[in-house]
Amino acid sequence: MSNMINVLVTTSVEADIKEWLNEDNPFWDISITSIPDQIKTAKIISKNSGMIVGIDIAKIAFRLLNCKLVESISDGDLVKSGDVILKVEGKLSELLLVERVILNILSHLSGIATKTNKLINLIKSNNLDVKIAATRKTLPGLRKYQKYAVSIAGGDTHRLSLSDMVMLKDNHLSAFSSITEALQVTQSKVSVYHKIEIEVTNRNDAIEAARTNIPDFIMLDNMSVEETKTLIPELKKISEKILFEASGNITSENIIDYASSGVDIISMGNITHSVEAFDLSMIIEK
Amino acid sequence: MSNMINVLVTTSVEADIKEWLNEDNPFWDISITSIPDQIKTAKIISKNSGMIVGIDIAKIAFRLLNCKLVESISDGDLVKSGDVILKVEGKLSELLLVERVILNILSHLSGIATKTNKLINLIKSNNLDVKIAATRKTLPGLRKYQKYAVSIAGGDTHRLSLSDMVMLKDNHLSAFSSITEALQVTQSKVSVYHKIEIEVTNRNDAIEAARTNIPDFIMLDNMSVEETKTLIPELKKISEKILFEASGNITSENIIDYASSGVDIISMGNITHSVEAFDLSMIIEK
Amino acid sequence: MSNMINVLVTTSVEADIKEWLNEDNPFWDISITSIPDQIKTAKIISKNSGMIVGIDIAKIAFRLLNCKLVESISDGDLVKSGDVILKVEGKLSELLLVERVILNILSHLSGIATKTNKLINLIKSNNLDVKIAATRKTLPGLRKYQKYAVSIAGGDTHRLSLSDMVMLKDNHLSAFSSITEALQVTQSKVSVYHKIEIEVTNRNDAIEAARTNIPDFIMLDNMSVEETKTLIPELKKISEKILFEASGNITSENIIDYASSGVDIISMGNITHSVEAFDLSMIIEK
Amino acid sequence: MSNMINVLVTTSVEADIKEWLNEDNPFWDISITSIPDQIKTAKIISKNSGMIVGIDIAKIAFRLLNCKLVESISDGDLVKSGDVILKVEGKLSELLLVERVILNILSHLSGIATKTNKLINLIKSNNLDVKIAATRKTLPGLRKYQKYAVSIAGGDTHRLSLSDMVMLKDNHLSAFSSITEALQVTQSKVSVYHKIEIEVTNRNDAIEAARTNIPDFIMLDNMSVEETKTLIPELKKISEKILFEASGNITSENIIDYASSGVDIISMGNITHSVEAFDLSMIIEK
Amino acid sequence: MSNMINVLVTTSVEADIKEWLNEDNPFWDISITSIPDQIKTAKIISKNSGMIVGIDIAKIAFRLLNCKLVESISDGDLVKSGDVILKVEGKLSELLLVERVILNILSHLSGIATKTNKLINLIKSNNLDVKIAATRKTLPGLRKYQKYAVSIAGGDTHRLSLSDMVMLKDNHLSAFSSITEALQVTQSKVSVYHKIEIEVTNRNDAIEAARTNIPDFIMLDNMSVEETKTLIPELKKISEKILFEASGNITSENIIDYASSGVDIISMGNITHSVEAFDLSMIIEK
Amino acid sequence: MSNMINVLVTTSVEADIKEWLNEDNPFWDISITSIPDQIKTAKIISKNSGMIVGIDIAKIAFRLLNCKLVESISDGDLVKSGDVILKVEGKLSELLLVERVILNILSHLSGIATKTNKLINLIKSNNLDVKIAATRKTLPGLRKYQKYAVSIAGGDTHRLSLSDMVMLKDNHLSAFSSITEALQVTQSKVSVYHKIEIEVTNRNDAIEAARTNIPDFIMLDNMSVEETKTLIPELKKISEKILFEASGNITSENIIDYASSGVDIISMGNITHSVEAFDLSMIIEK
Repeated sequence: MSNMINVLVTTSVEADIKEWLNEDNPFWDISITSIPDQIKTAKIISKNSGMIVGIDIAKIAFRLLNCKLVESISDGDLVKSGDVILKVEGKLSELLLVERVILNILSHLSGIATKTNKLINLIKSNNLDVKIAATRKTLPGLRKYQKYAVSIAGGDTHRLSLSDMVMLKDNHLSAFSSITEALQVTQSKVSVYHKIEIEVTNRNDAIEAARTNIPDFIMLDNMSVEETKTLIPELKKISEKILFEASGNITSENIIDYASSGVDIISMGNITHSVEAFDLSMIIEK
Repeated sequence: MSNMINVLVTTSVEADIKEWLNEDNPFWDISITSIPDQIKTAKIISKNSGMIVGIDIAKIAFRLLNCKLVESISDGDLVKSGDVILKVEGKLSELLLVERVILNILSHLSGIATKTNKLINLIKSNNLDVKIAATRKTLPGLRKYQKYAVSIAGGDTHRLSLSDMVMLKDNHLSAFSSITEALQVTQSKVSVYHKIEIEVTNRNDAIEAARTNIPDFIMLDNMSVEETKTLIPELKKISEKILFEASGNITSENIIDYASSGVDIISMGNITHSVEAFDLSMIIEK
Repeated sequence: MSNMINVLVTTSVEADIKEWLNEDNPFWDISITSIPDQIKTAKIISKNSGMIVGIDIAKIAFRLLNCKLVESISDGDLVKSGDVILKVEGKLSELLLVERVILNILSHLSGIATKTNKLINLIKSNNLDVKIAATRKTLPGLRKYQKYAVSIAGGDTHRLSLSDMVMLKDNHLSAFSSITEALQVTQSKVSVYHKIEIEVTNRNDAIEAARTNIPDFIMLDNMSVEETKTLIPELKKISEKILFEASGNITSENIIDYASSGVDIISMGNITHSVEAFDLSMIIEK
Repeated sequence: MSNMINVLVTTSVEADIKEWLNEDNPFWDISITSIPDQIKTAKIISKNSGMIVGIDIAKIAFRLLNCKLVESISDGDLVKSGDVILKVEGKLSELLLVERVILNILSHLSGIATKTNKLINLIKSNNLDVKIAATRKTLPGLRKYQKYAVSIAGGDTHRLSLSDMVMLKDNHLSAFSSITEALQVTQSKVSVYHKIEIEVTNRNDAIEAARTNIPDFIMLDNMSVEETKTLIPELKKISEKILFEASGNITSENIIDYASSGVDIISMGNITHSVEAFDLSMIIEK
Repeated sequence: MSNMINVLVTTSVEADIKEWLNEDNPFWDISITSIPDQIKTAKIISKNSGMIVGIDIAKIAFRLLNCKLVESISDGDLVKSGDVILKVEGKLSELLLVERVILNILSHLSGIATKTNKLINLIKSNNLDVKIAATRKTLPGLRKYQKYAVSIAGGDTHRLSLSDMVMLKDNHLSAFSSITEALQVTQSKVSVYHKIEIEVTNRNDAIEAARTNIPDFIMLDNMSVEETKTLIPELKKISEKILFEASGNITSENIIDYASSGVDIISMGNITHSVEAFDLSMIIEK
Repeated sequence: MSNMINVLVTTSVEADIKEWLNEDNPFWDISITSIPDQIKTAKIISKNSGMIVGIDIAKIAFRLLNCKLVESISDGDLVKSGDVILKVEGKLSELLLVERVILNILSHLSGIATKTNKLINLIKSNNLDVKIAATRKTLPGLRKYQKYAVSIAGGDTHRLSLSDMVMLKDNHLSAFSSITEALQVTQSKVSVYHKIEIEVTNRNDAIEAARTNIPDFIMLDNMSVEETKTLIPELKKISEKILFEASGNITSENIIDYASSGVDIISMGNITHSVEAFDLSMIIEK
């Protein structure tokens, strides 16, 4: 993991960090006006166990504020409580300015990575071969970073936006007379360079969709473990090409049940929309 | 609650919604290119019990997309599973375009409000009079909305940014020879129009800070319930003016213990940084 | 074509129009300061034959300037010289303000659509079944609109950005020991929700790539008509799943030769990077 | 040409490059996630003959991505097929990220410069002394760069925007009772620091405009070569101060006819709105 | 004046107002959270005598906040203390939100217009025919509005930016061997569509510049009234075409002396950089 | 003063400077196209006596344009006419590009600091202990810089925005039945972390407000010196906690009268809205 290249576009991350600094400083930090400034060393310390993501972002942020990186771990590294994840040197005023912005993004992304990583390990430890994927249920303005964290943790990013895969859901299907028609019209109209997924909520629709052999993915939405276990073998017989995705109310409690149903992918909104922050703190050396 | 005026600045909310739509549509929604467009009615349905926040934002978003509001509840209203929280009419293509953006912000803010509201009710039901306050541990780019949700739920927004209150923490104090000096220098330099808070981590510092009678707030950071219970009465004797805030690892399990220690305010990062999304879905009528 | 829904995100188009107005008006239109303002009717007239794209954008622009649309044709409609493509009513000062911005985008997009449409008709009139696709060789800042014009004209948008399909080119392959390795490593690392294309420049590479059966597309880059005609049947025997794309120096002169080689898709940079503007003018009624 | 100073404002070019990178990377380059990163040398090679413009922009772009310039030619230099126009060193991932953005702008601006330069040379080789000028028929968002390319090639930028010269056209004149009145009112109302041009479409209007001696320029719009040849000597007798500009459907075929009519300037939309991209490619050394 | 058309580009003014609202509301107006909202009528009242500019901006601002204009005077109208300049109806919360932003811009622009207008009247009342012009000594971010106010008041906007007229100053001339060379090189290199001004600080330079007959304007910078009075007739004999501008430390005290020297234009930084705000207040009816 | 740390957020200042450069260069500086570029040294010279503010901003601007600072004084330093306040080395073209932008902001902020500083010295020289505070009557887009200048000069910044202190004015009070009710409702609804000020215009309201002991500040708006002198001792008897602020038509002529009335703070709009620019010029060495 730690030798993965930095895929985030630096200039775009810089732009976001500048906005986050403005959010926290509509004018300036009124607490530092009274401080005798000086060069200090700061450390970011882990107070949890898990996977860290956001180091590349933190590095860009510190550089923007003219702080000098001393050392750091890499995105995707595993840490335990007490580990130093980053050490940096800079003016006290700049360290205080950027502290909260950096901790907020690091804690959130590391929370995502830790949660995703645990689920993947759980699946592996059950000798199952199912991918965990994120959804578009992300927090507004943070999708790029949330999907990046999922990816670093070994999850699949799934659709990044409405522009990169076709997904037909209930709300789309209402405009067509049948699932077959929806898939045929769609296939004839959309670019061949994008994949097609269809979401179904019952056995009949799943089978109708599979029989067209058009979609690249069929998502079984909110189906019970039992239904899923019965349906998947049937669907796999109909189409070898299509991948099957389970989604809806899947948690760490029932994920192994779903994973053992034969589905190829489990997609989960809660690895991006309901995340516990990873506990980190920044300590400035005396 | 429901007759509270809309304090969010409409033009600023519009700007954010436009960015969120761009995030979800770097080009356009490739799934709707095959759809026969038509006017439809959509409902947002609650699948949880709790407090809804974000209706005012959703209204602005629908209006930007030329969808017509039919009816809605108000920010701060309590709902149960199955309740319709908003009904709107518009082109199918526009409804599908904005669906996920609106659900993502609504689910997140309603998650915050529901969590905050439960804690406040828990305190009230124990006949205690302690405020719950948020912190600056918010998600980058979303602070305005997160603080708004806390406020609607009856929580205190605490400091909105580095520009609106002076807060002296460990990392600031390292630049001074003593707490007393830090407070005196600060008081003499900062604007009289902003309040001053100091964060302390032990009894001696708390007492030294209280004796200066300078700060408006003293925050006891990461102190145990026992320490807090012993210390607060002592501090209140030293200064009647100062309000006392407990913070650090306070959860729904131990909040009543802290609340009964005599502190005036309990501030909690987890009502903004570790929130479970409120389950909502949008259904387009056939 | 004319009943296609407007897929462009209105709020995003508005933002671009505002920037284009600023580009043309860093201060204001100094030519209108002397004009007695009055309500006028303006018509946009075609001075060419071909396909018009940009009507939806023009409508948004006129609405932003409070001009009232009287009538218009639709994106994708075919016109001949002299046809009125749009009629609008508004203040003379506003019509003059927006005239050039609207004509510039309309002329460019209609130029793209007309060129693409002619190529598609040429292929159809030769009873061939080959798709025409655009590339990422677009003009900076205009990709969304250029791809939209290609799409309205019946072309395939191909990859919209670096984020929506994997494409391995010469410059990528230099980092791997073989094409097979490049494809295997890539398949194992990238999201299953995106397609994979590989660009090859000679027979051996094409065959190696086809034998992996990994890519969704193989692009034959800058190969001669003869090579292409020999190679395609060979490749199709190796893999039924893979689609084959010809690219590089394909023009209206040789497109039929390439199209009859058996390739599935022909992608062309010149439908977006070397376009002749469609001649349009705006006439304000006396 | 090559010792011309860089007039483009660096901070503003950087802002545009960042937007163009975002356009091509709404999330990130999914093709590089599988690549073993390493330092590489890349060369941009010409595959045409002509004049290169955009080197200063490419340098700024490479610097933004932390790539190190090894050598380059200068804006305005003439090249032939096979020439290396720029050599740079950087991480493979960064080179691939910025490749298309840089080639797209370089190809477009070099196309403009090459076309403009050829026309100027054609005029010079006929021993004529007529300026070639651009118009406001530019591509939205790219005017600054297109006008810069024209300027480097030796063309006149003409009006840069609606804010820097007064131009009265048909659509303006409709608000006045006569050309004379339009010019008199305009002269009395607009700032003396800006020039005034009037566009006329027939002999009578041209003569009326010339007799006022108010405009700095009279543009003969869409007049035939014959009309122009007859009219210019007549107009020059009426006013020595005024410069005469021919415009409308002037191409490389008829430009010498127009240029020998005695006009001072020929303005042409097609050097900015109908440009053939200059063929360039980037090669990364193995 | 009052029938002058609105030349400001509405979409661009809206963008500025949104930024100004954000400046004043990084989060929201915490003073209105306690207010029972209701529809109110507000009046903006003049507490000075002078010329009002900014009404068109105020109208745009009120419309953005969904307040309904009841009546207003026009930009350029003269008022006396006590006059109502605008009456509007809207929600109390919206009126309070926008009050300060509108008053700040209106007070500033009306201050500029009033000062400029007084100087122009002073000149007219001395039967002199000299133009008053602004400079580029404007307040960052406000140039468009300041120049607009000068223009409404009857002043000349002078150069709007570095892009619309050539101005050679001392700091430019240092790069050339002589004024004549500077002017000749400049004339040969810059677009013919822009005027040329040269700033000189002594008699010899003024005469050398005039003898080239190249510049459209010669500015006498910081010369005494006596020098100016002697020099102007001499210069006018050398060139009839050139206009002469006096600048530098010209105030209402000495402006008539300069104006009677024969100069064509007096340019003054203090009508934009040292302006007294026009006193206005907004009153909300009980 | 000169050892005060730079509190302005560098990334945010850079963003503003870039916008100001764009305002002055919608395309580019057409005056420098003819200049033989070369490295030059430039000095900014004071032509007034007073306090300089804006040096930190100038340094950031010069660095953005790749000019090298040679030496400079610090924000808050006092200068007299002829003093060099900053010396810098860079390309002639870059120095000319940034000259006016830097001088405009420096002149304006130094004008504010000089005016504020004189008032503070006047008060001190009368052995009075009253703070001078700014207001929200600032110029749109410049508040951060204007408040910063006031602060450097020793003034109080007062409320920075609508989001950092509650202020109840006439226009708010109209929504309540009494001052007492307004204050009680407000205190119960707003965050305890922000101070509360109330503005009153007569003796009765002042006394009613003081008796609640709720507000942190009572502002006497537009009261005469006499009224103020009588009222303050009375109010101080009612509440020891509340600070009293005088505001409205206070000038350097009457400020000592007000200051000797016993008020704690005098707030003045004219130190930000009606400022005389400090005279500075940039000289490029031959």
